[in-house]
Amino acid sequence: MKRVLSGVRPTGQLHLGNYCGAIRQFVDLQHSHELFIFIASYHALTTHSDPEALRASIRQVAIDYIAFGLDPAKVALYRQQDLPQVTELAWLLACQCPMYLSDKGVTYKDFQAKGLTANVGIYNYPILQAADILITDADLVPVGKDQVQNVEICRDLAGRFNHHYGQVFKLPEYRLADGAQVLPGIDGQKMSKSYDNIIDPFMDEKPLRKRLNKIKTDSTPMEDTKDPDACPVYQIFRAIAGVEDERTVQLATDYRAGGLGYGDAKKRLFELILDHFGPARARRAELMADPEQVEAILRDGAERAREVGTATVNRARAACGL
Amino acid sequence: MKRVLSGVRPTGQLHLGNYCGAIRQFVDLQHSHELFIFIASYHALTTHSDPEALRASIRQVAIDYIAFGLDPAKVALYRQQDLPQVTELAWLLACQCPMYLSDKGVTYKDFQAKGLTANVGIYNYPILQAADILITDADLVPVGKDQVQNVEICRDLAGRFNHHYGQVFKLPEYRLADGAQVLPGIDGQKMSKSYDNIIDPFMDEKPLRKRLNKIKTDSTPMEDTKDPDACPVYQIFRAIAGVEDERTVQLATDYRAGGLGYGDAKKRLFELILDHFGPARARRAELMADPEQVEAILRDGAERAREVGTATVNRARAACGL
Repeated sequence: MKRVLSGVRPTGQLHLGNYCGAIRQFVDLQHSHELFIFIASYHALTTHSDPEALRASIRQVAIDYIAFGLDPAKVALYRQQDLPQVTELAWLLACQCPMYLSDKGVTYKDFQAKGLTANVGIYNYPILQAADILITDADLVPVGKDQVQNVEICRDLAGRFNHHYGQVFKLPEYRLADGAQVLPGIDGQKMSKSYDNIIDPFMDEKPLRKRLNKIKTDSTPMEDTKDPDACPVYQIFRAIAGVEDERTVQLATDYRAGGLGYGDAKKRLFELILDHFGPARARRAELMADPEQVEAILRDGAERAREVGTATVNRARAACGL
Repeated sequence: MKRVLSGVRPTGQLHLGNYCGAIRQFVDLQHSHELFIFIASYHALTTHSDPEALRASIRQVAIDYIAFGLDPAKVALYRQQDLPQVTELAWLLACQCPMYLSDKGVTYKDFQAKGLTANVGIYNYPILQAADILITDADLVPVGKDQVQNVEICRDLAGRFNHHYGQVFKLPEYRLADGAQVLPGIDGQKMSKSYDNIIDPFMDEKPLRKRLNKIKTDSTPMEDTKDPDACPVYQIFRAIAGVEDERTVQLATDYRAGGLGYGDAKKRLFELILDHFGPARARRAELMADPEQVEAILRDGAERAREVGTATVNRARAACGL
């Protein structure tokens, strides 16, 4: 069974965009792959500054991932800080990393482009990411387009280390998230926390209904025919239910037939969310009320990650003379 | 009792210059201070490339330090890699370290000045050094002039972290090595491995005598009076025995009186080395023959360092939300 690694930044509030873009993919992958998913707390420190908020975000991300359907019996879900050996591995890799390689890092370049003063954590970002991947002996790293470079840097560093010290690291492949259609937010732009346009499928029913009613639609009268593909309500519906689901097909048919108002379409989306995320919502409520259970899951995930990780780091240490 | 921290790079062969410049200072300090001395193996990886040579160097440095008079019952002597938590602490500090601070690092600037491609380990050097110091809650760091900057960077980073997250780190003071007179090598230049002019006080007697005979002296005839301060033989003698030692006084008197040949002076130096380093030579032979004992000392040192170090890192983790 191939091992898949992914990291998630503890940014707090997850939303439908995260679910459709990444989380659902993991929920599918867990049946055919061995998944390691870590909550990137060390990375978060490059920009986070409030300890309490960070702690809360880490816990919330864990809860939401499990609620969305990750099975802790299948997936090793762990906090990055519970595998502190990654920082040691990052040092070993840093000694093999010429400056010109880190200089290229997209996170660092973004900072520079914005005229911000990067901290050295930002500069070392791709090296720690490489360590995150290599430490787990991962075969596969699912990435968005903007993350391809990081896997390439990882392969480069692993190759340099192996070349210098002998075969220590497995070189991971990356897999571009397929289809990755962009999910629109309530304003029609890409759904993103920074645009304040997200939909949180865990919202209580009343505010959720209000939120969905805010989805921006055009002024086509109810009786007119409409192009479903041009409407965010349909796009979001399709992303959740899938294009072949009969409810999706029905919704598209009704758009095209005319006579369907956006208010009605939004109501169907509301029902869909309650239906599709019903088990997730229940599971989440249960986990929110049981921090011990969450803690136990994370501890168990960390144990599994450390079992692999400690072996990798020991191999790397021995190879370079430590 | 104040805690003193010092790191030593595992460069292999130590020599009289190291002894007079640093090691003897530690041998004195151990009676009045709590010493933590670590063998900087992570730092060595920034330039080392041969794992076997590194391993041997680490062991040899440990043996020589103990042989020179460090008392393992008093001093915590440990390998940096046996306190891997320093790399984690280095990450936490890196996230507080603006790039312009690391850009100033002397090690990195030296590399740049020589037109070499620095690796990121070189660039991160001062941050790992800061972690080395802070992790032990050291009060005092003895340094040469060229190392003052690193302690200043360390204080700066500790201050930033404390300011941001509350009181976590003790700010260390530095102490400039006093008197630090430069010891000449056999060619009269500063004694340094890179000049190939060192004197190894652990050499066997015959090659040691030969080596001392190579010390460069001028062509003043035997019967003429000589200026002891201008002669490397006297300078080395004085550095070992001390300026007030009666043998040093006698040697200076004889130089000035005339009638003392350089060959005779070298013979006295030879006798002095055998006498002064007699116990060290015996202890070294014993340790060379007993790797288990060396290992046990290093393990014990690491345990003491980890006791302090783990507490510091846990404090830092908790403060920043991990």
